[in-house]
Amino acid sequence: MLELWELGGRDGVRFSTYSWRTRMALRHKGLNFKSHAVAVSDKQAIAFSGQGKVPILKAGDRVVCDSFDIAIFLEREFPDRPSLFGGLQGEQLAYFFNLWTDREIVFGLVPYLMLDVLDCVEEADRRHLRSQIEGIFKRPLEDLYGEREKALQQLGKKLAPVRKTLGRAPFLGGTAPGYADYILFGTFQWARVVSEVPVFTPDDVLSEWFSRLLDLYDGAGRAEKARGERKLEGAA
Amino acid sequence: MLELWELGGRDGVRFSTYSWRTRMALRHKGLNFKSHAVAVSDKQAIAFSGQGKVPILKAGDRVVCDSFDIAIFLEREFPDRPSLFGGLQGEQLAYFFNLWTDREIVFGLVPYLMLDVLDCVEEADRRHLRSQIEGIFKRPLEDLYGEREKALQQLGKKLAPVRKTLGRAPFLGGTAPGYADYILFGTFQWARVVSEVPVFTPDDVLSEWFSRLLDLYDGAGRAEKARGERKLEGAA
Repeated sequence: MLELWELGGRDGVRFSTYSWRTRMALRHKGLNFKSHAVAVSDKQAIAFSGQGKVPILKAGDRVVCDSFDIAIFLEREFPDRPSLFGGLQGEQLAYFFNLWTDREIVFGLVPYLMLDVLDCVEEADRRHLRSQIEGIFKRPLEDLYGEREKALQQLGKKLAPVRKTLGRAPFLGGTAPGYADYILFGTFQWARVVSEVPVFTPDDVLSEWFSRLLDLYDGAGRAEKARGERKLEGAA
Repeated sequence: MLELWELGGRDGVRFSTYSWRTRMALRHKGLNFKSHAVAVSDKQAIAFSGQGKVPILKAGDRVVCDSFDIAIFLEREFPDRPSLFGGLQGEQLAYFFNLWTDREIVFGLVPYLMLDVLDCVEEADRRHLRSQIEGIFKRPLEDLYGEREKALQQLGKKLAPVRKTLGRAPFLGGTAPGYADYILFGTFQWARVVSEVPVFTPDDVLSEWFSRLLDLYDGAGRAEKARGERKLEGAA
């Protein structure tokens, strides 16, 4: 029995990039799991893990923290199911890609997505997140948000090597998706769930790839409603 | 019979980062090859390839250009020899890593290495290279060289994800070297062959890794003398 502790916002919305990396890795291995939503500020709920961050996977009596370590755990534990990394070089380069994505893409999206994230969480988490992010960037979120056009332009440039790579094959994993796809997918899924601002235009190769990822595993990614969809329903 | 056309400087010195990527890929596959040194400005020597860049690999009547395409060719043509990519995800992510290295590391090294490169080539190539690089950066090489300390510091930061990846396993390929190792090795080998300024300190994990790469295949990389070694011999 697998259990996943992951960030949950208002109405249980699952928006965390790291959580989506793990969710897709579990689906890739064909594994069912029970999800526990955890509020950003609720450290008590995950005290059992001996640390303060989600996602956390519990498999029987084993507890694995950190999305990349969870992927490694799943690959070692279920070697006969579809491979997440396709061997050691794939694993090493996916680790590099994970670091690159966090540093260049996630960090690049934070300034313009964070105000949207605040709208998706409960009041206590809102204060917690604001002080955390403003502490890192040393500026008010509203200032950062004012520069979102520039941030999106820079992001477009940084993604150029990914676009070229997807010009060679439909997935970063090649002909089939691999963990590298889920790393980047999780990042754009975060943007899709919290914000109405599109990260790329419909004719972008990344847009087509993202759509393919949303379709995987009976539309597991698409089942989590985009910000725009939730808003429409709220208005109906 | 395999033949490689690659940049050659004064006294036949092989300094090109792309050439070294291909040389190591050929060694990895256990293949012998005949090397033809080509001067940067000598387009006539490689006119047979229908384009103007080296390295070029000729295998029988097939001509393959571009170091990454050559690696793909070798992987497809010699599938029973040690794999360069370890599967499709490894190949896709190595392609991404190739783009990242060219953009962040090679481009970052150009300003401070180019004056050294000029010392390693013949007079005609010197003029050719200077105008080519100054055209790209829109500044005199001497200006760029004046900022080498800053360039090295930025390079150190950009390499942080590679350092972390090498903290997990001895090679970017995992327990054995893969094409990703040769991509980065080629880049540092270029620096080692043309310049006396060390790119990293001896206690850097990258330094240990680079040394392991220099030792591979009976010290094929080490057999190409470093700038400092050539200078000492010239002085003897």
